[in-house]
Amino acid sequence: MNLELRVVIRQLGLLLLVLSALIGAVALFAVYDRLAGRSVDDADLRALLTAGFVGFLCGGSLFVVGRRTSLDLLGQREALLLVATSWLFGAAIAALPFWFWSTLHGDTDNATHDFAPFVNCYFEAMSGLTTTGATVVQTIGTLPRSLLLWRALTQWLGGLGIVVLFVAVLPMLGIVSRRIYRVEAPGPSPEGVKPRIRDTARILWFIYLGLTVAEIVALRLCGMTWFNAVCHTFATLATGGFSTHDASIAGFPTIGIHIVIIVFMILAGINFGLYHLLLQRQWRSVIKDPELRVYFAIILVATVIVTASLLGNSSSTASSSDEPASFANALKHGFFQVVSIQTTTGFCSDDSDQWGFAAKATLLILMFIGASAGSTGGGIKVTRIMIAAKVLLAEIERVYRPKVVRPVKVGKATIEADLKLSTLVYLAGVVLLFAIGTILLMLLEAGNGVDITTAATASAATLNNVGPGFARVGATQNYAWFTAQSKIVMSILMLLGRLEMFTIIVLFSPRFWKTQ
Amino acid sequence: MNLELRVVIRQLGLLLLVLSALIGAVALFAVYDRLAGRSVDDADLRALLTAGFVGFLCGGSLFVVGRRTSLDLLGQREALLLVATSWLFGAAIAALPFWFWSTLHGDTDNATHDFAPFVNCYFEAMSGLTTTGATVVQTIGTLPRSLLLWRALTQWLGGLGIVVLFVAVLPMLGIVSRRIYRVEAPGPSPEGVKPRIRDTARILWFIYLGLTVAEIVALRLCGMTWFNAVCHTFATLATGGFSTHDASIAGFPTIGIHIVIIVFMILAGINFGLYHLLLQRQWRSVIKDPELRVYFAIILVATVIVTASLLGNSSSTASSSDEPASFANALKHGFFQVVSIQTTTGFCSDDSDQWGFAAKATLLILMFIGASAGSTGGGIKVTRIMIAAKVLLAEIERVYRPKVVRPVKVGKATIEADLKLSTLVYLAGVVLLFAIGTILLMLLEAGNGVDITTAATASAATLNNVGPGFARVGATQNYAWFTAQSKIVMSILMLLGRLEMFTIIVLFSPRFWKTQ
Repeated sequence: MNLELRVVIRQLGLLLLVLSALIGAVALFAVYDRLAGRSVDDADLRALLTAGFVGFLCGGSLFVVGRRTSLDLLGQREALLLVATSWLFGAAIAALPFWFWSTLHGDTDNATHDFAPFVNCYFEAMSGLTTTGATVVQTIGTLPRSLLLWRALTQWLGGLGIVVLFVAVLPMLGIVSRRIYRVEAPGPSPEGVKPRIRDTARILWFIYLGLTVAEIVALRLCGMTWFNAVCHTFATLATGGFSTHDASIAGFPTIGIHIVIIVFMILAGINFGLYHLLLQRQWRSVIKDPELRVYFAIILVATVIVTASLLGNSSSTASSSDEPASFANALKHGFFQVVSIQTTTGFCSDDSDQWGFAAKATLLILMFIGASAGSTGGGIKVTRIMIAAKVLLAEIERVYRPKVVRPVKVGKATIEADLKLSTLVYLAGVVLLFAIGTILLMLLEAGNGVDITTAATASAATLNNVGPGFARVGATQNYAWFTAQSKIVMSILMLLGRLEMFTIIVLFSPRFWKTQ
Repeated sequence: MNLELRVVIRQLGLLLLVLSALIGAVALFAVYDRLAGRSVDDADLRALLTAGFVGFLCGGSLFVVGRRTSLDLLGQREALLLVATSWLFGAAIAALPFWFWSTLHGDTDNATHDFAPFVNCYFEAMSGLTTTGATVVQTIGTLPRSLLLWRALTQWLGGLGIVVLFVAVLPMLGIVSRRIYRVEAPGPSPEGVKPRIRDTARILWFIYLGLTVAEIVALRLCGMTWFNAVCHTFATLATGGFSTHDASIAGFPTIGIHIVIIVFMILAGINFGLYHLLLQRQWRSVIKDPELRVYFAIILVATVIVTASLLGNSSSTASSSDEPASFANALKHGFFQVVSIQTTTGFCSDDSDQWGFAAKATLLILMFIGASAGSTGGGIKVTRIMIAAKVLLAEIERVYRPKVVRPVKVGKATIEADLKLSTLVYLAGVVLLFAIGTILLMLLEAGNGVDITTAATASAATLNNVGPGFARVGATQNYAWFTAQSKIVMSILMLLGRLEMFTIIVLFSPRFWKTQ
């Protein structure tokens, strides 16, 4: 069977058109801001309109080229190619507003230098769409509100895209394990698999929208402006972590805001398949979900460790927020940072880079564990960690009782041999990519005198879609100082992590492109 | 079936008796040295005799306690328990010569402080028996020749023990995969499995002895004294790395010595099952062995990378040996260090800690890859890396062609599902133990202000049985400065690595101890 490139091109064109329309919507927001009396440069507005127009041309041409095709031709390989190209080219379009804004402001304005070479804009856009939250912006306060909204919006779109992809699209096409995304196997139905994808996608979209409205209202009630509430909601639910404030959430001292954001980060890190079950009133399966329980258990245990470490190491607590080192503060920052890092959001309530080794090691481990499968969060995912742990225990028993075959179970479900192997391969892949990323960053940044902590945590924070790492990519730092080559490496790491690796790696396999 | 403790106790007693007899033999060597006119303290001699006597008492009592039993009762679980206790208690006996030597010399003599708390002696003995080569001795020159011989001998014994264990004993008992140790499945034979183990073990012993004699003669011909030739041969063939010289092999400038040691390190890193095949004149299967080919290929590629890195970074070449930074020197040190680290020997021809990042990263990767399965070398082993790589490639294809089932092959042999899974679990286990080791060392050495490079490479160098790491455990450094707790952690890491993890981990599984 030949690869049906036409259908991939058409769908990609459609996606770019949607992105361009949204850039247009942000331009409308800039117009509204100007009418409301806020200072909006002509250049700000022109940048958005140009970006939207260029995006519209790109998307439109692709759509025209691929128009004569049927969605039924979208098979497994086409779907994989579409997913990869969506993020690769989507990030290019999403980078345009930053790029034109920088170009139109010229070299005289210092603040534009953050977006000066195009690779910076691409990094920022990829960081948004993959919901990573790593930024090249050194002083966020100098950006116009329209660009801040666009940054937040890329995250929100990326988060929605990932949930729909992994819970509705890929499992139905048989590409990834249905079990870990809580998708029921579609029975033989006369309408085929496509309408089912559409139904599930629609439900997920409503859930996402509902959570968005709820958080915006909650943040507004806690005293945030509408604008900040919207931007931070976008970044929370996508587990993205872009803030409108240089100090991230540490810039909002209200305890209510911290609590609301903690709650919604936790909600965003739950498998959206479970919300789907909730809507079907299957309370029991939700409450008994093994991944959900372990997810909460990890948050609890990690919070205890980090809080204890902060109390034992009082000189380093609340270093950036000038608060006294009390139990309440240690718990507040410990809980916030644990949830922020495990869900791979990356918001900061304190400069965790100043914390003690035990707290930092815990956070680094959480980066790799990540959130639940089928959530907007990144990382390896709790369910994979569970499967790997059970396989490890089973293998230990097999050493001294080779003839006893005990099925490996998670909850009541037996893990089949295929899933066991692919889970461990996934883990090995993450470790391998992490190591390759670290080595490449060390080599590429040798001239910048980069240390191993910076290189390793930058690799981990981008691969696991977290955002901040430690040392020179710590909570109060940014990614602006890296060379262009490193930014490309990290953009690829973000994409590999976000699309769970194989979706991207297959494209480099010669057999993928061969006709069968 | 109950665990037959009695047979374990008897065999352990026997092993300790053999160790004590060897300590006695070293005492005879000290007597010979004195007769030959060399200065041998009374205390030196008394230390060895006391150690031998205490060891004899321990071994003898165990043997008496367990004497009424039959070797036929040695089943799988008993064998595992025997292996673990052999190294754990064997190291305690092997530590006695160091300990009594330090005690008998009293506190006045500064040099004895290296062996001052018993944990230092245990660390040194475990490092010897596991053929790691990490040392707590700060100035090797101050040790008497008898102790230097004993250090080298522990390595030689450890190397022999490992080869016999993994090529002859465990596969025959069905505990580890026969395939990767090149053992043929024993057919149904009237004499049972035990005589077969004895036959294979005897052949391996002859091979080991033959290589030993060959290297001693070769080193002597290159100008080493007989004593140095013997000690370095013991440390080479066991891929151990203990030297009699503070500067390790850098202290022997003759190029011939470098070449001989390189050749025998390479030979020691080859699966001893292949030598067995050679003796049966199966040339073709040896030449076509896939692990052997990849083993040589890795050495070649790594040597090219390291040599190139040394040439490009001339200021750091040959830093400790004061030689000009020429191509010949870069190649000499690059080749030597690559072979030394990949075979997990740990001899140093130069201070590799001063080398550039590319060279050091390559060496660190080699530490994890390690030598061939069934050799005296440590690390993950080349064959496991090959299986993991092939499984990874097969999984990538499975993403877009879930229905195509292609068997994973290494050479002509198909890798079965069980071996695939256990290989990946092994990799995951190594990564996990490496991470746990690093974190523990960071926490335990917080007072010593340890850096992450030191902690991570100390963890890697002990777990993979290499010896030297980087930074404060680099080529010219030692392990004396660690706290007692860290030394215990690293002793456990050495043992876990040496016995391929599961052999030790099963002992912590409650089910192992239950009657079936």
